[in-house]
Amino acid sequence: MTKHHHRPHLHDFPFTKTVDSRWSDIDQYGHLNNTVYYVLYDALINSYYTTHCGWDPADITQQIGLVVSSATDYFEIVDGFPNPITLGLVVTKLGTSSVEFKIGVFQGSKDQQGIVKSYDTAKAIGKFVHVFVDRKTNKTSPNGLSPNLRDGLLKIVNKKASL
Amino acid sequence: MTKHHHRPHLHDFPFTKTVDSRWSDIDQYGHLNNTVYYVLYDALINSYYTTHCGWDPADITQQIGLVVSSATDYFEIVDGFPNPITLGLVVTKLGTSSVEFKIGVFQGSKDQQGIVKSYDTAKAIGKFVHVFVDRKTNKTSPNGLSPNLRDGLLKIVNKKASL
Amino acid sequence: MTKHHHRPHLHDFPFTKTVDSRWSDIDQYGHLNNTVYYVLYDALINSYYTTHCGWDPADITQQIGLVVSSATDYFEIVDGFPNPITLGLVVTKLGTSSVEFKIGVFQGSKDQQGIVKSYDTAKAIGKFVHVFVDRKTNKTSPNGLSPNLRDGLLKIVNKKASL
Amino acid sequence: MTKHHHRPHLHDFPFTKTVDSRWSDIDQYGHLNNTVYYVLYDALINSYYTTHCGWDPADITQQIGLVVSSATDYFEIVDGFPNPITLGLVVTKLGTSSVEFKIGVFQGSKDQQGIVKSYDTAKAIGKFVHVFVDRKTNKTSPNGLSPNLRDGLLKIVNKKASL
Repeated sequence: MTKHHHRPHLHDFPFTKTVDSRWSDIDQYGHLNNTVYYVLYDALINSYYTTHCGWDPADITQQIGLVVSSATDYFEIVDGFPNPITLGLVVTKLGTSSVEFKIGVFQGSKDQQGIVKSYDTAKAIGKFVHVFVDRKTNKTSPNGLSPNLRDGLLKIVNKKASL
Repeated sequence: MTKHHHRPHLHDFPFTKTVDSRWSDIDQYGHLNNTVYYVLYDALINSYYTTHCGWDPADITQQIGLVVSSATDYFEIVDGFPNPITLGLVVTKLGTSSVEFKIGVFQGSKDQQGIVKSYDTAKAIGKFVHVFVDRKTNKTSPNGLSPNLRDGLLKIVNKKASL
Repeated sequence: MTKHHHRPHLHDFPFTKTVDSRWSDIDQYGHLNNTVYYVLYDALINSYYTTHCGWDPADITQQIGLVVSSATDYFEIVDGFPNPITLGLVVTKLGTSSVEFKIGVFQGSKDQQGIVKSYDTAKAIGKFVHVFVDRKTNKTSPNGLSPNLRDGLLKIVNKKASL
Repeated sequence: MTKHHHRPHLHDFPFTKTVDSRWSDIDQYGHLNNTVYYVLYDALINSYYTTHCGWDPADITQQIGLVVSSATDYFEIVDGFPNPITLGLVVTKLGTSSVEFKIGVFQGSKDQQGIVKSYDTAKAIGKFVHVFVDRKTNKTSPNGLSPNLRDGLLKIVNKKASL
């Protein structure tokens, strides 16, 4: 990944979702294991496709996303279980058949009553690139992304200089 | 596991939690993989300890639960991603140092607007037994379960003939 | 699971396989997480099907195994990573369309040079039941298990009183 | 990650290891899920530390590696289960307290008898950076990497222009 000269805030992301961590996500050091971040990206992005792009993984006539690259810069330890994790999602590049996302990984700091006060800056930043292909041929379509995917993704294209 | 002559309902369980499934939980057949059920039990139970029993996995003076047995009867396929999964938890036996849980795995059926209408009967039933031991010695305490754990677990001890 | 009055030895199992544990298999306590045992059973059994029963998960004309029950009794902590784990597999019941396996989980004790000396008794015992169904209909076949599966499974049917 | 103008061969890597894939590694599309690559890197690298650097994760006086960045470029689908995966490992940068690895992901093509004929070029390339810190303070040591780690890592520092 390219260098990050700054760490974004949660409000920099047009789509956010808070997810549970699982006991088995935590490794021998008590940290959210480095590999789990990618599991969370994969779930977040596929979840966005189903809820905002009319995408259905069980519909074999629809295009599917193949991952062509992924990356994470880890800035701070994420505690994971039993604390939830909040993810921010933004489209940083929308090509003919491909989409590049940036993902922010956040954990709210809590006050003494356990209420989340603020999300501070991202504890990690991920990158994730999908190329959409026909399910049978594994080839991109001459028309590129299907209209439902393109429309859904356009809603969260980055418009901020801060990302 | 012993035979189940009936499949319980969600309202049979004193503690319930709805969790997200993840894309990577789904196997080659498009089913929630059989191993993921145990990941969900593990997360559910450890989550109950932290939220209702004052238990903190990072506090090394506290007892820890070692799993001595676990089991699942799978009745119906669970779709998993992107559908959430609702889990029911009940204590079926509370011993001096051990606790036996029953877990129900549910998925709501939806109407045409995507609203969950009913949870029907459990799609799977799990069993899970923890023995609590001292973290350093791996031995049970002469006094058994610590009071905070016992108090929290007593709240969800089964009182129904239906379970 | 029914009570185990004894813990079997590795030589009680007609098929054995040694597998690597992974760093992410180990939980916050430094133990092989209780859920990973099921991941190992699933891999072992599907691997036996492909190597000894002419089964190919990519061949959509073949039957697939749906898990109807699974269980584990955990007797001793398994260290996991970086130590390999040795699994024993035996068929304990072969029905018309179903097969029940017992799995033994072993870890060799090592001498001072790091050479595995003996496998002692099983550290855990698993049970796993597959029902084979037609891939499209999710129904069992009137003829039951396909001949290649039955022939392969017959080779490891239990013949020992010790199991 | 920076662009790869070429895809390395297995013989470009000074350390290689063949590992089993697991049934649960395969996703709904029948591919090795994109997140599993990171699980394999994590296992490979920690395994190299234990077998070649005298490192013991259970020894709390030893330094531990925190992941500061990771990345993958995926070039070709990896079949995964039941096919094994061969990984190549090389140190591309050895700093005072940090180490950067490149990992190649390979799968041998087989002839009609199922014998692996050749490994062709990498199907994916990973990058993985560990910073070693004191286990209690989470800070790097003024002396940098412990001598056993440095010595072990020096053995697989890249000396090829091809990487």
